[in-house]
Parts: sequence; structure tokens; C-alpha cells
Amino acid sequence: MAEPAQVLAFDVFGTVVDWHGGIAREIQALRPAVDGDAFALAWRRGYKPAMQRVMSGELGWTLIDDLHRMILDQILPQFELADMPEEERRHLNKAWHRLDPWPDAVEGLTRLKTRFTICTLSNGNIGLLTNMAKRGGLPWDCVLSAEVFHKYKPDPGTYLGVARVFDLKPEQVMLVAAHQDDLAGARGCGLRAAYIERPHELGPGQLKDVSPNPANNYHCRDIADLASQLGC
Amino acid sequence: MAEPAQVLAFDVFGTVVDWHGGIAREIQALRPAVDGDAFALAWRRGYKPAMQRVMSGELGWTLIDDLHRMILDQILPQFELADMPEEERRHLNKAWHRLDPWPDAVEGLTRLKTRFTICTLSNGNIGLLTNMAKRGGLPWDCVLSAEVFHKYKPDPGTYLGVARVFDLKPEQVMLVAAHQDDLAGARGCGLRAAYIERPHELGPGQLKDVSPNPANNYHCRDIADLASQLGC
Repeated sequence: MAEPAQVLAFDVFGTVVDWHGGIAREIQALRPAVDGDAFALAWRRGYKPAMQRVMSGELGWTLIDDLHRMILDQILPQFELADMPEEERRHLNKAWHRLDPWPDAVEGLTRLKTRFTICTLSNGNIGLLTNMAKRGGLPWDCVLSAEVFHKYKPDPGTYLGVARVFDLKPEQVMLVAAHQDDLAGARGCGLRAAYIERPHELGPGQLKDVSPNPANNYHCRDIADLASQLGC
Repeated sequence: MAEPAQVLAFDVFGTVVDWHGGIAREIQALRPAVDGDAFALAWRRGYKPAMQRVMSGELGWTLIDDLHRMILDQILPQFELADMPEEERRHLNKAWHRLDPWPDAVEGLTRLKTRFTICTLSNGNIGLLTNMAKRGGLPWDCVLSAEVFHKYKPDPGTYLGVARVFDLKPEQVMLVAAHQDDLAGARGCGLRAAYIERPHELGPGQLKDVSPNPANNYHCRDIADLASQLGC
């Protein structure tokens, strides 16, 4: 590698924060009889198809907060929660703003921030990401989002958008993510790629395949491990 | 006031950082014979007209980095610097990324951050604002910019854009600025307004009128004073 990356752009849901644990905890606090694991997986399952409706043009530009709400309204009847009142739906929908960082995330990001510009590159909206960072102590230099580019990952406009924002070449930016498809999108645009293992992202019921892909520049146990590999 | 503001959105050039001192210092470091005061004022004088060309539709959407460069190329001959090489122009143009915070800014923002979400609302582009914050230690929760809204202040879309990003009512957002016209734009959209005195914004040659306007919600000596007035 000629030059090292200057900007590290992080995927957030699953990579930096534990969406499964957070959503399961919040629904169980509201309705203890519900299977929190199944509820979290069902809500998340609607995520990619909803973004696909935006990217295909079927829906106009729609923020993740609003997509999350559409999916929530769809799944509530499946969990016999069709009677959930509006106020409670609105509160529950913002559970995505209140997800906890994985235990290594704040320490790892704080170390990386000493040598790199660290930003989000998430499909989550700016307000969601900012509220989450403030609550969890995530020390971003900058909150970048699909909302800035009006495109959802894996659209190349998001990956190349980060390079453009910082007036850098694509290879001076590295995407950090726990998802191989996201990293493949970034590599396809000339960005570097660091994979973070999150074997428990999908909850206690299923173990994720976290085997290395040699196409990535780094393979890391967690974000603190990435900091160590980058000499921070 | 029924509810306090939850988000404080800061104007940056002049309010948080000293553009005059920074630009004068950088041109004098490069070309000691140049009148740094006059050079800084000339460069800044081109700023509003350049944004006006974008907002009128004469130019398509153009980032401040690119507008700064257009103005720089225009003023160099006036200072007998028409021979400045490309590399030096590019370096000098990024002087706007390297402006120093006013002495009270980091302390004031750090105190305010304990109780409020603090973000930028600047016509500067995201990369510029992020590089500036990282260099100067400005602890933003979020970097918002005209670049996010594709509109320059005082367009209402910028002020209302902050409220929209955070899913708040306009009166739950307060603009903090050293410029009465910016604050008037914010008030016109229903935001609150805090004025920061920066009597030396225009350099040693001229003292700015910093008299209070009773239409603003707060009038502050500096950002640390705003923190004190807000109980932080």
C-alpha cells in the first residue's frame, strides 16, 4: 500500500452497536410476553427490502426512521401487538437511537481517533446516529449518512461520497464493517476494507459466519483489535 | 419559553473560529510582503456574492472550498500574486480548514455539550468543518453544513433543516452566531437565537458593532458566557 488511509468510515448497525440486543431489550421492557429475539430479527429483516423500495424509485427519498416505522407497523400484528398505541409505537421506533455500543467500540474508536479521521457511513439518518453517539459516547469526528448522499449503501455514491467530502482518493478511505456485502461495495469503488467479526450480531440463537475474506485489507476480532493492527 | 432548546446549532466562521487572524497569518507566512489584514478582508468580501451566485441559480451547487478557490484566483492579481503556482494556491485555499478557535470556544462548547446536542450550521463544507474541528479540538456532536441541505444560509431550508434532522420543532433549536442577519434568518423560521459578541472578527483595523438586539433570546460576550447563561 502506497499511502495509508486517512479516513475510517464505519458501518454502524451491527458493527459498532448491538441492534439485536437493544431491540430485544426494549420490546421486552414494553411487552414482557413477546419473544424479543424473534421480534428483533423480524424488524431487521424488513430493513433491506425497505431500502430497496427507495433505491428502485418505488418510494421517494425516505429516512431510516420512517422506514423503521413502516416495518414496525407491518410486524406488530404478527406479534399480536396490533393494538399498540401511537405514542408507544413512536417511542419503540426510536429504540434504534438507543442501541448500546459493543463493549470494545468506545475504546477502539477513541484510540483510532488519535491517528485517523473517524466517521460513520451508515444507512441510519443523521439524527439517529447523533442521538446514538451522544448516548453511547461514540467519539465521531463527523456523522456521515445515506441522508447526506440521498442514496443507500451499497450504492457507489455513498462510498465515493465519503472520499469526495474529504477531497481524497478512494484508496485514502477505508470502510470498517461487519458485513461482507458492504465491504465488497466499498472495495468495488476503490476504498480499502476492514472486516470486524461480530459473531453474536444475530443474537444468541444463531452464530454468524465470520471467516476471513482475503480480499479485505484487515480482518479484526473487534474495533480495539483494528486499532492495535493500525498501531494506535 | 415553554421548553428549552435541545439542539444548539453554531455558525462557525467568526463565531467559533477567527477567520481574519488565520487567513492573515497564512498569507504572511507564504508571502511576508503582503498586507495580511487587507488580504483576509478581500477574500472574505467575495464570500457572500459567491454564495449568491449559487442561490440565484447562476452557478450549480458548489462547495465553499470551490467558491473560496474562485475568489482566491480573482484577488491574487490585486495583491501582485498573479504568479502564485497551483500547488501553493491549493495549500492556501485550505487555510480555511486550519482556522483557530477563539480562546473561549473549546471550553464553552465542552460545557454546553454536557446538556445540549451541539452541532455546526455553517456554509462551510463538511470536510472543511471536520478538518477544522479535529485540528482545533471542537467537540461537535454532529457536523451539519449547507452541503447537507444544498442551500446556503440564510435560506430557510438550512435553519428548518436542523429541526428536521433532529425531528424537533423549530423552537427546540437555537442558532448561535456572531452575525445579526444570520440570527434574523433563524428567528424568522421560529428558531431561538443567541448572539455572540466578536468585536475583533474583522481584525485589528476595525471594531464591529456588537450592540444587543432585543429580538434575540440571549446576548453573550463569548461561548463560555453562553454556557454560564444556560447553566452549564
